[in-house]
Amino acid sequence: MPYDEKSKQRIIKYLEKLKEIRFRVKPDEYARYEAAARRAGYPSMRQFYLDALNEKTDAILNSENGD
Amino acid sequence: MPYDEKSKQRIIKYLEKLKEIRFRVKPDEYARYEAAARRAGYPSMRQFYLDALNEKTDAILNSENGD
Repeated sequence: MPYDEKSKQRIIKYLEKLKEIRFRVKPDEYARYEAAARRAGYPSMRQFYLDALNEKTDAILNSENGD
Repeated sequence: MPYDEKSKQRIIKYLEKLKEIRFRVKPDEYARYEAAARRAGYPSMRQFYLDALNEKTDAILNSENGD
């Protein structure tokens, strides 16, 4: 198996382990997310989503009164 | 066209207008999001995602120094 094929198989195996997050939003909500990501200098929407989820998750899990 | 079919067509037309957000995360990150959503009493992961994105978007767009 040539190197590129091995490498491809490794990437496929890795991606299969990941969980897919998928949902729909209204076009005007999406436009606001893009505007915010652009204003804050995000290089990709994915990174903006990850930061948003991680920040909210940390705020909940690190708070004393989260439950 | 019976009522149910009309209603179905209207829903399909509406869903087609929505933007799909889709990205992958590591399984342990996903588990943390679920734990946070559960702890904060979210009825669905979608609502948790929407709140996270809206809160981050508002924080950026409402700040004076966002850019």
